Amino acid sequence: MSHEQDVLSAASAIAPVRNEVEADALAHHLQLTKPPGSLGEIEAVGVRLASIADSAIPPLAEPAAVAVFAGDHGVHSEGVSPWPQEVTFQMVMNFCAGGAAINVIGRANDLDVRVVNAGVAHDVPDHESLTNSPVRRGTRNLRVEAAMTRDEAAAAVMLGINEARQLIDGGARCVATGDMGICNTTPSAALICAVTGRTPAEVTGRGTGIDDETLALKTQVIADALSRVSAGAPAADGLDLVAELGGLEIAALAGFCLGAAERRVPVIIDGVISLAAALVAQQLQPAVVGYLLAGHLSVEPGAAAALEHLGLEPLLDLNLRLGEGSGAALAYPLVRSAARIMNEMATFESAGVGGSEG
Amino acid sequence: MSHEQDVLSAASAIAPVRNEVEADALAHHLQLTKPPGSLGEIEAVGVRLASIADSAIPPLAEPAAVAVFAGDHGVHSEGVSPWPQEVTFQMVMNFCAGGAAINVIGRANDLDVRVVNAGVAHDVPDHESLTNSPVRRGTRNLRVEAAMTRDEAAAAVMLGINEARQLIDGGARCVATGDMGICNTTPSAALICAVTGRTPAEVTGRGTGIDDETLALKTQVIADALSRVSAGAPAADGLDLVAELGGLEIAALAGFCLGAAERRVPVIIDGVISLAAALVAQQLQPAVVGYLLAGHLSVEPGAAAALEHLGLEPLLDLNLRLGEGSGAALAYPLVRSAARIMNEMATFESAGVGGSEG
Repeated sequence: MSHEQDVLSAASAIAPVRNEVEADALAHHLQLTKPPGSLGEIEAVGVRLASIADSAIPPLAEPAAVAVFAGDHGVHSEGVSPWPQEVTFQMVMNFCAGGAAINVIGRANDLDVRVVNAGVAHDVPDHESLTNSPVRRGTRNLRVEAAMTRDEAAAAVMLGINEARQLIDGGARCVATGDMGICNTTPSAALICAVTGRTPAEVTGRGTGIDDETLALKTQVIADALSRVSAGAPAADGLDLVAELGGLEIAALAGFCLGAAERRVPVIIDGVISLAAALVAQQLQPAVVGYLLAGHLSVEPGAAAALEHLGLEPLLDLNLRLGEGSGAALAYPLVRSAARIMNEMATFESAGVGGSEG
Repeated sequence: MSHEQDVLSAASAIAPVRNEVEADALAHHLQLTKPPGSLGEIEAVGVRLASIADSAIPPLAEPAAVAVFAGDHGVHSEGVSPWPQEVTFQMVMNFCAGGAAINVIGRANDLDVRVVNAGVAHDVPDHESLTNSPVRRGTRNLRVEAAMTRDEAAAAVMLGINEARQLIDGGARCVATGDMGICNTTPSAALICAVTGRTPAEVTGRGTGIDDETLALKTQVIADALSRVSAGAPAADGLDLVAELGGLEIAALAGFCLGAAERRVPVIIDGVISLAAALVAQQLQPAVVGYLLAGHLSVEPGAAAALEHLGLEPLLDLNLRLGEGSGAALAYPLVRSAARIMNEMATFESAGVGGSEG
C-alpha cells in the first residue's frame, strides 16, 4: 500500500470513545470516600479515561512515555527565528544524552523519553532512545511552496502512527506528545489559522522569544502562506493541509495521536505545536479527539484557539512555552493520579465511613 | 517551658528566606538548554526553592511527606455540616488503612502520608502512620465561646512544629499540609475573615457540599463568632486568634509550617483549611511565608482571599475542594520537577547547543 492508504486505513480503524460508560464511571466515583465531585477536574479526567478504555474503572495510566518528534523547516530562511537551524540537531543530541528539560521532567515523573527524527536537516547518529527515520531533511519553505508533497506528509504521519504502536505494544498505557524544531511555531500557527479560521495576527506568537520586528515578519510569512494555499485548489483533507503548511514533526505528531487512539490509549497533548498536530489528526479522523487530554495552556496565542476548536480544557496553566513535551509530561502525574483514584480508593461501604445525615 | 514559650521560641528561630540568592538562581536558569523563561512558573518555583535553601542550585525536594492533621469542632452542634462528626474519626481510620484519596495520591506521587490526631472527638487506636496526640477531644463551639484556651492552642501548634521536625529529621526535603475535620471550613472562614478583613458573606463557602439554607446558617455562625471576638479584648497575636476561632488541626497546621520553615524546608499548602493555618503562622512569624508554596486554588471562596493576603500564586486550579492535602500532593510533582530542572539539566556549554544568532 501507499503511505496514504496506510494512513487512511489506520484512521478508519479508530473507534469513538465510549461515552456510554461515563454514567457508570460517575456512579463509581460517588461510592468512593470523598464528598461528591470534590476532586474536580481529577474526577473528570478519570471519567474521560473510562470512556477511552470503555471500562467504568479505567486501567492504570502506567507506564507512560513521551515521544519527542524533531524536524526542520524551510521557512527558517525567512528569518522567523533568532535561533540557528543547527539547534534542532543539537537538541536532539541533548535529548539522547539525557540533558534536556524533557529528560529531567521525564525522570522526575516516570515517563520514558523517546526521540523521533522525523526530518532534521542534519545527519543524526543512531541512539537507543532514537527512532532515526527522517522522511526528508527539513521541509520546503511554506511561504512560497508546499512544505511537503502529499506522499511525504503521509510518510511522516505513518512514522508517528508506528511510533505509537511500538510504544503501546511495548507496554505504555499513557503517551504524551513532544516536539523539537527551530521555528516550528510558524507552521503551527499557519495550521491553526487554516483549521480554526483565526487570523495570523490572532494566533502568531513570540515562540521561544522574538522581538516586535520579527513578530511582524513572522505574521506576514504566515499570512503569505495562507494566501498561497487559498489561491490554489482547496485543501482536500488533513494530509493536504499538513503537506502545504506543516512540518514533518507536526505530521508525525498527528500520526502519533492516531496510533494511540487506534489502541485506545490516552494521549496527553503538549503545547501549540502538538495542538496544531491534533487539529491535523482531527481532520483525518474526528473521533481521535476523544482520546486526547490537554496537558497545559501554552503562552502561545494559537494554543487557546486550538484548544477551543478541539473542545479540550487544559490541566495546567503555568506560562510554559518550551515544547519538547514538557507541559504534557508535567501534567502526567495528574492523569496517573486520576486513574489510581478510580482503582485504589476505598468505598464508603468498604471503609465503614458514614454518609450524609441529610 | 510552657507551650506558649516553646511556640514563641520556635517562631523566633525562623530566618527569612534569602532573596539575595535569587539573582544567582536566575543566572543559573539562563545557562540551561532552554529559551530564557520558557518553563514559566516551574522556573519561578525553582528560584523560590533556591531562596528557601539559601543556595542558587537548590537541593532536591525529595523525599516528600504530606501530614494530614485531624480534629473535631464544637461548632458542629450548630448544624453547619450535613456530615456526622464521626466521619472525622472514620476518615482517620481510612487514612491509616490507606484507602483515602490522599493515600492514593501520595502513592502515585511519592509522598509518605503521616496522620496526626490533633483533637479528634473519638478515641483513635494507635497506628504506625499516626501521631496520636490529641490536645483535647474537639474544640468548644466558637459561636458562643473561645474554641480553645491559649495554652491548648499553643500545645496544638507545638504538635505541628514537632511533627515537621520529626519528618525533616527523618529525611523529608519537602512537606505538604493536609487536614481532616468535619465542618472545619467554618473555623477556617472565620480565621480568614479575622486576618484579611473580608466579610463572612465573602469567604463562606459550601465546604464539602451544603444547601442554601445551611450556607446562610454557616455564614451567620461565622458572623456571630467574629462579633463575639471583636466585642472582647482584641486578639493579641496568632495564638489568641487561633484559640478564639480556630481548630486543633488548624493550630497544628500553623505549627507544621513554622517547624518546616525553622529547618528551611519548603511547605506545599493545600486548600482553605491549610491556608487559614498559614495565616495563623504568618501572624506568629511573618517570615514563614517565604517557605510556603501554594499547591492549588480551592473552590472555597476563602482560599483566594487567603492566597492574596499571603501573596502566593497557586500552582494548580482544578476545582478541588476535598482537603486531606490532596491538592498539595497533586502539586508536589511540579515542585519536585522544578528542583530537578535546576540540578540535572545540561547547560548550553556542556551540551554544545548554539545560542541565539541575534
